[in-house]
Amino acid sequence: MVADLIDQPNVWRDILARRRDADALGRIIAARAPGFVLLAARGTSDHAALYAKYLVEIVLGLPAGLVSPSVITAYGAQPRWAGGLFVAVSQSGASPDLVRTVETARRQGALTLAVTNDPGSDLAAAAELHLAISAGPEAAVAATKSYTAQLLSLFLLMEAWAGRPADGADRLPDLADAMLAPAGDAMAKAAERYRFAQRLVVTGRGYAYPTAREAALKLMETSYVAAQAFSGADLLHGPVAMLDTAVPVLAVAPEGVAGQALRPVLERVRAAGSDLFVVGSPDALGVDRGYALPSGVPEALSPLIEIIPFQWLALHMAVARGEDPDAPRGLRKVTRTL
Amino acid sequence: MVADLIDQPNVWRDILARRRDADALGRIIAARAPGFVLLAARGTSDHAALYAKYLVEIVLGLPAGLVSPSVITAYGAQPRWAGGLFVAVSQSGASPDLVRTVETARRQGALTLAVTNDPGSDLAAAAELHLAISAGPEAAVAATKSYTAQLLSLFLLMEAWAGRPADGADRLPDLADAMLAPAGDAMAKAAERYRFAQRLVVTGRGYAYPTAREAALKLMETSYVAAQAFSGADLLHGPVAMLDTAVPVLAVAPEGVAGQALRPVLERVRAAGSDLFVVGSPDALGVDRGYALPSGVPEALSPLIEIIPFQWLALHMAVARGEDPDAPRGLRKVTRTL
Repeated sequence: MVADLIDQPNVWRDILARRRDADALGRIIAARAPGFVLLAARGTSDHAALYAKYLVEIVLGLPAGLVSPSVITAYGAQPRWAGGLFVAVSQSGASPDLVRTVETARRQGALTLAVTNDPGSDLAAAAELHLAISAGPEAAVAATKSYTAQLLSLFLLMEAWAGRPADGADRLPDLADAMLAPAGDAMAKAAERYRFAQRLVVTGRGYAYPTAREAALKLMETSYVAAQAFSGADLLHGPVAMLDTAVPVLAVAPEGVAGQALRPVLERVRAAGSDLFVVGSPDALGVDRGYALPSGVPEALSPLIEIIPFQWLALHMAVARGEDPDAPRGLRKVTRTL
Repeated sequence: MVADLIDQPNVWRDILARRRDADALGRIIAARAPGFVLLAARGTSDHAALYAKYLVEIVLGLPAGLVSPSVITAYGAQPRWAGGLFVAVSQSGASPDLVRTVETARRQGALTLAVTNDPGSDLAAAAELHLAISAGPEAAVAATKSYTAQLLSLFLLMEAWAGRPADGADRLPDLADAMLAPAGDAMAKAAERYRFAQRLVVTGRGYAYPTAREAALKLMETSYVAAQAFSGADLLHGPVAMLDTAVPVLAVAPEGVAGQALRPVLERVRAAGSDLFVVGSPDALGVDRGYALPSGVPEALSPLIEIIPFQWLALHMAVARGEDPDAPRGLRKVTRTL
């Protein structure tokens, strides 16, 4: 997991070096001018799909939705998806439910795109278009570099589709290289603090919400803690009741709109007496405990670097608990669901 | 909470008696022939919206998506939603983020529909169309009857839109009346069993997935337990690693496709050693512990009765823990988020 984690800046460099692939696909999609975008994915890839949904809604201004494959695989629906773009995101490209959903979308007349780490996969073959995330072999069961490779690939694709220059991405690998070691040290200390936590909450809004979801999944997969992710607003619509001094809250609050929109939520978290740890701009939010991300990163790209401290936290929490983060119980690298 | 909970069959009778309202709206929407459906909601209402999304995809065969209001309220996006139906679901109709999102959708040319319990609310005023769920005053903070009133209202609306007869709904009030007391007794016993659980998982697939989400929220709101909901397939893509003998799993597995599709998931849950409780058809799944729902309910209507045992469980868990289910800490009946 460490090898995958620290490989991320290099993976991003490779993706940026081949950005012509994403650019070309973006132009093909723009020429077909889909009127809406549907996305399907599972697990970590589902969080990359959720990130892409925000890009579609905010950058492209199109309707977007996340599809549950069960609508196709269990209920046999044949929805009218013609005129839309159907995107399936999967590291392995091997899960039969996604393959079948793409096949249905294609038969229904949608433009289909598979985003995978394996150009030879069934999913890549099933879709009309394929975007390779080029993350290289990912050894650990808990996905790290394939996640940020999906984020960056989807970002470049959407920017190309929108006809925008994708500014700011070139700086990310160096920024990540510089923060890898200090983030690892800081989160090793945080892991000591949360060593005995049985449950915790992760929250974020907007572009930072997929980070909250992925952070929670990493903690569940490697440390078996009951990590629950909520968008800031959803946290206030009910779950806030369960917060107290025994439930730490990890907030994803980078610079920009998402972090600012989290302010009223964090007030309520503090009022509940919860221990609060902010990844992003703790100082700007008046929070003592946290990890300060490098500043000046465009908000839509912030999820790439936001997740790194949480990946370290999941790793160190697992080790602190005597678990093996490379071999989570009950999981294999490739999960096949129907 | 008890008063609201046991009022549900009567609320459903009222809604069925006024089904002409839903029928008329369904015909209006059908005449406008939207090409896709977007839904926005928070908390319990978000689970009704998720249920409606399944109906749209399976019954109507249209593309559907759940919108995060932050796309509008935080990022100021102006998405091209013309040609679509935008549905906002809210008991109170008072949350400013939903009002603003509906206003934006309407300005962008979408057909807008508010589904609320208050025809005088800001949300009802903001939307072109309004569907009153007619649940009557809901006293408890934790929503019960307003949730099933939303489900039934949305079911009738979608069936009318599809030009179908909405068979099977008329039997539901009597079925629910007959099960209210035995479900209460059974779940009071279950609450004793889970009295000291600090965390639990609720899982379901397809139409039963919104039930799993809503059950988890009820348990969080009233009993402050770390209740995590996953669709069956998503549970296998990572979170299954955290299951062990200390983590009970509550499965929503009614008759039909959703219950059958959960079989391989429950095998894995059992392999992890988790305590398993099935609401639905425990016998058909070979599970000893559970609550058997009345048989013969059409699967798309099953969520109305599935949630009742979980509402009782949330209530009895709260009481068993010395909490007041009518006054969850940190919550008010109407939550306003931006």
